[in-house]
Amino acid sequence: MNTYDIILKKRNGEVLEKDEIIYMVNGFTDGEIPDYQMAAFLMAVYFKGMNHEETTELTMAMADSGDRLDLSGIKGIKVDKHSTGGVGDKTSLIVGPILASLGVPVAKMSGRGLGHTGGTIDKLEGIPGFQTGIPEKDFIKQVNEIGLAIVGQTANLAPADKKIYALRDVTATVDNISLIAASIMSKKLAAGADAIVLDVKVGTGAFMKKLEDARTLAKTMVAIGTLAGKDTIAVLTDMNEPLGNQIGNILEVEEAAECLKGHGEHRLMEVSKTLSAYMLLAAKKADSYVSAMDMVEESISSGKAFEKMKEFVSAQGGEAAYLEEPSRFEKAKLTKTITGRDLFLAKPETADWKRAYLTGCNNQEIGMTSLILGGGRLTKDSKIDLTVGIYLYKHLGDEIQDDDKVAVLYGNDKEKLIEAEKRFARAYTLSQENHFSGQVVYEVITKENLDN
Amino acid sequence: MNTYDIILKKRNGEVLEKDEIIYMVNGFTDGEIPDYQMAAFLMAVYFKGMNHEETTELTMAMADSGDRLDLSGIKGIKVDKHSTGGVGDKTSLIVGPILASLGVPVAKMSGRGLGHTGGTIDKLEGIPGFQTGIPEKDFIKQVNEIGLAIVGQTANLAPADKKIYALRDVTATVDNISLIAASIMSKKLAAGADAIVLDVKVGTGAFMKKLEDARTLAKTMVAIGTLAGKDTIAVLTDMNEPLGNQIGNILEVEEAAECLKGHGEHRLMEVSKTLSAYMLLAAKKADSYVSAMDMVEESISSGKAFEKMKEFVSAQGGEAAYLEEPSRFEKAKLTKTITGRDLFLAKPETADWKRAYLTGCNNQEIGMTSLILGGGRLTKDSKIDLTVGIYLYKHLGDEIQDDDKVAVLYGNDKEKLIEAEKRFARAYTLSQENHFSGQVVYEVITKENLDN
Repeated sequence: MNTYDIILKKRNGEVLEKDEIIYMVNGFTDGEIPDYQMAAFLMAVYFKGMNHEETTELTMAMADSGDRLDLSGIKGIKVDKHSTGGVGDKTSLIVGPILASLGVPVAKMSGRGLGHTGGTIDKLEGIPGFQTGIPEKDFIKQVNEIGLAIVGQTANLAPADKKIYALRDVTATVDNISLIAASIMSKKLAAGADAIVLDVKVGTGAFMKKLEDARTLAKTMVAIGTLAGKDTIAVLTDMNEPLGNQIGNILEVEEAAECLKGHGEHRLMEVSKTLSAYMLLAAKKADSYVSAMDMVEESISSGKAFEKMKEFVSAQGGEAAYLEEPSRFEKAKLTKTITGRDLFLAKPETADWKRAYLTGCNNQEIGMTSLILGGGRLTKDSKIDLTVGIYLYKHLGDEIQDDDKVAVLYGNDKEKLIEAEKRFARAYTLSQENHFSGQVVYEVITKENLDN
Repeated sequence: MNTYDIILKKRNGEVLEKDEIIYMVNGFTDGEIPDYQMAAFLMAVYFKGMNHEETTELTMAMADSGDRLDLSGIKGIKVDKHSTGGVGDKTSLIVGPILASLGVPVAKMSGRGLGHTGGTIDKLEGIPGFQTGIPEKDFIKQVNEIGLAIVGQTANLAPADKKIYALRDVTATVDNISLIAASIMSKKLAAGADAIVLDVKVGTGAFMKKLEDARTLAKTMVAIGTLAGKDTIAVLTDMNEPLGNQIGNILEVEEAAECLKGHGEHRLMEVSKTLSAYMLLAAKKADSYVSAMDMVEESISSGKAFEKMKEFVSAQGGEAAYLEEPSRFEKAKLTKTITGRDLFLAKPETADWKRAYLTGCNNQEIGMTSLILGGGRLTKDSKIDLTVGIYLYKHLGDEIQDDDKVAVLYGNDKEKLIEAEKRFARAYTLSQENHFSGQVVYEVITKENLDN
């Protein structure tokens, strides 16, 4: 077996054998296969694709390239959750406490974010005292005791994925369904859960802009999970505007707490509750979606989920009192209010309008606004500002008038705030007529409907 | 402009701008663009192709990546000749003297061969005393004085091509028409001739196995040459069996001399004379193909071409007397005669035959036979044995009987000779019926028929 022949085989559109895929992944991870051959191989995969079996073998080889987390010390069915990423997505902070309050153990080892906001770990570090660097033993213990722990990644999970992703990122080979699916699923398989619920985002703020592409990715991942022996469910959810009202690290922790107190924005709640219900089903804690949803709603309305959130934050050294009283959280020094007038003036064709409906949003631009304010990372080494972000007062489908407050931007740098303001104001599409579907959850893919 | 965007653009099937192509070629040659990005780019080109304009820009950028040979000191129209390579192809050694004897200056700076035999330079070094390392000034002077010089490459011609080819060779991106055409034509353009005649080989011993592919390559190269302002003609010739009777470095010099003495094998002569006639036309020394062919034949029959060969060999320090008396050339110590019986016995289905026609030849295998004997290079650093090779007594279309001598293999290593023998004997297809077209020159592509 040699690298050249494997590149040639894929380039010619042939199906690779399991051992050929393992040879490529291990050889590249070990440094025996040079970058340039892997780059050519990845471009060949981009053009010729991989079938479900090849993609599963790729995923397994990547999952096996480093440590696999051993969660066997945790009682019960462990369900992991993964989002393909979007603007304002803080569902992990909401779903974790709900599940734990309902007796499902949630053991999350999370990486830091790269993009418009930080990852879950970055957000939690906005809570004074919160510790993310907990030894694996204590992590397992905490999950057994209170049902929930979220810590920074210490284990060497799927190093092949890191190395391959870094190469894809500079060779225009990121957007291939098999490679995306293998990247996500290899980390999930290495993270050791028994079942996986995937939140596949669709829309202008998501990696997958079209429902069809998101569905293909979801099906690919469910197929991989199923072939790997894990109960896997994918929920396709909307990302055509930010999820919830708040974007930015501390702002998102604040909003998550508000959600568990029963004051959640309806789209964010619909996504969080749907994911929670499917995780309950995967954990075999409910026998139907309706009863799962009832359990989820009761955990929120009874205050149990919020209590669990505080318990979890305290257990990791964080000051849970901040969650009770979010005004205590540190905020950025400068704010800028965006009004309807700012949106009208942002484009010549709407400059003389006095009222309109928000009918579209370039959500990626909203993410860029948050990044510009300092809330995200452009590179792995960027320093993140946890206090900045965006508070939204209007959503798609809302009517806005000249004086209406649309959003408030939080920043610590005047120039960045001015740039962010311009970018934000131009991100929306305005219309005199309202035409907005409002759909939040599009589809659910399970192994049962995989072949439809 | 950045590398990522250019890879992405080509990956998405868009047409690249001139400055984008120059950016890639220069950046890679200078080492600013890493191997892995170039590898991904080349694979994208493999899948998405390049149009004639892009291919020409690529060629020009590669030609401009190093020195361009300045042949302005040579009087007259300089015509270069290039073969895409085949087994037993010694036409340069025949065509050069013919052209020089007819007043067309031939200034050839030639690389060493990689493959089943050496390059022209290697072959010439089989003549005792022959010097290939001549300074550029003396090289020009020799061409002006006697009309012909063939020397090893000293100038840094098209370094981008060397670097790109080395990468293509290990990333399965060799067989793309645009990349092949740019590789050949960049070197030809840098080599400074005014006109170029291309011998595009077709068949089992050629890079292009199918006439259609060879035609596409030929048209691409003629288009590039024409866009670059050089009179360019491509002749498509047969490579379904070795060209001529002799394969191997010294054996080919010997055969070339025999051809110029008027004893040439008919297929080899047809190719050599056709190429010579088109070169005469390109050099504006003849006004029709028929008169060009008359001149070529006269140069051979009169002995002028052979005299020119000896003059050229002497001028470069070689002992021309060897050409008069080829038996003086050093030969390999061991020989093995292959008979019809050996061919019959090589395959179970013909084992009991007593006579058959040679109807097919896996010519690449004949090349491999020569390589195994030691006549070629597997890598740049392989040492070549100039004395080994193959003498063919039979050609496609010939009837062979049990006792007929088909070929003699020349080697210096017993084990290699045994392996070569096996390989050679299995390379032919035998049949009870003769069905062989015998066509040698298939087509001629010029700028006039480029769009047909």
